[in-house]
Amino acid sequence: MLVAEGAADSEVLVEIASLARAAGVPVRVVDRGQLSAAAQTESPQGVLATADPLPQAELEDLARRHPGRPAPFLVVLDGVTDPHNLGAVVRTAASAGSSGLIVGRHRAAGLTAAAVKAAAGGVEHLPVATVAGIPNALSALAAAGVWTVALDPGARKPVWGLEVATEPVAIVLGAEGKGLSRLARDRCELAVSIPMPGPIASLNVSAAAAVACFEVARSRTTQAD
Amino acid sequence: MLVAEGAADSEVLVEIASLARAAGVPVRVVDRGQLSAAAQTESPQGVLATADPLPQAELEDLARRHPGRPAPFLVVLDGVTDPHNLGAVVRTAASAGSSGLIVGRHRAAGLTAAAVKAAAGGVEHLPVATVAGIPNALSALAAAGVWTVALDPGARKPVWGLEVATEPVAIVLGAEGKGLSRLARDRCELAVSIPMPGPIASLNVSAAAAVACFEVARSRTTQAD
Repeated sequence: MLVAEGAADSEVLVEIASLARAAGVPVRVVDRGQLSAAAQTESPQGVLATADPLPQAELEDLARRHPGRPAPFLVVLDGVTDPHNLGAVVRTAASAGSSGLIVGRHRAAGLTAAAVKAAAGGVEHLPVATVAGIPNALSALAAAGVWTVALDPGARKPVWGLEVATEPVAIVLGAEGKGLSRLARDRCELAVSIPMPGPIASLNVSAAAAVACFEVARSRTTQAD
Repeated sequence: MLVAEGAADSEVLVEIASLARAAGVPVRVVDRGQLSAAAQTESPQGVLATADPLPQAELEDLARRHPGRPAPFLVVLDGVTDPHNLGAVVRTAASAGSSGLIVGRHRAAGLTAAAVKAAAGGVEHLPVATVAGIPNALSALAAAGVWTVALDPGARKPVWGLEVATEPVAIVLGAEGKGLSRLARDRCELAVSIPMPGPIASLNVSAAAAVACFEVARSRTTQAD
């Protein structure tokens, strides 16, 4: 772990360094220029740790029901290329109780440093599976008994009160601007929209993910009562 | 309006420039360096327009019921300092049918170019009132018959099925990290939380705003059915 010179002025950095040392992590104090050069994000906040690569989850594991645990609640991102949006979705999905995220390998944001930072701890809790193609992954999920639900602004059925929310379910979100690819949309078993009563009808993908994920969370808690 | 040289290669820029000319807006073609120098946002997308300042809304107007229109549905931001978060909240609130936003003048993000860009058109539709102090504004809203509802992670009552959603209502959100100031929290008549079943319980203010605003929107449409 690298800590910026002058970090002793910051209570939280002192605490981070002390926790790291207690855990046996070597801590080196460097000047701010060195830290910025080593960082892969804009405006690093005075500390940088090198970690093992995140473990990769397998699609089949994410689709499987585990006894004593809620039914799988997955989020599938089709062609989301902005790492901040990816990170924001990870954070929101983890908070809403999602059990896994599925992203494509191509034309998609990876879990870069910027995405991990935006996820604010979420990546440590939400298993992520990277797949070669989203359409095939959707077919595999359906075959494994997971309802695939496209979030599609053109769908007439609202996301409110989604009947399959308590069953194994995957919420499928498209890219900012372009939306879901035709192929991905066609592979989904259901399509729902977020009704937007306002004068504009435009949600960032992370806002749409927040609304849809917490609608699943709401249905799961209120239907379980 | 300034358009970057080489914009003729981009269909959308050509369309923007042609619409501007049709509306009598002077369009000047400049090189990318000049455009970047004039822009107040990172990575300008090849076009920059200078506009009149946004009109300021008055708190009393936002709190007033208008015949034939839904009851006021306001969003109050207490100490949100990140312009991207402010812009994202504007976009989401406008899409959810909010009738106005209230922000503080001090220690708060203003509607800078970065915020306006993140709002993706929302600022043209959502009236914004800037107030000297949020606690006083909350008292004024309550006196005007608007329910003031704090979004507070410590509240036991969930935001789901908010009873006052169809009445004049203001959703009050605090800053990233610090949450609502004590004074603002104490002035709110109700407090609700977003139940988070996940292993982390942490939402970005724009994600929290999305969940709360669309819960109001959902209640308004489903209760009206």
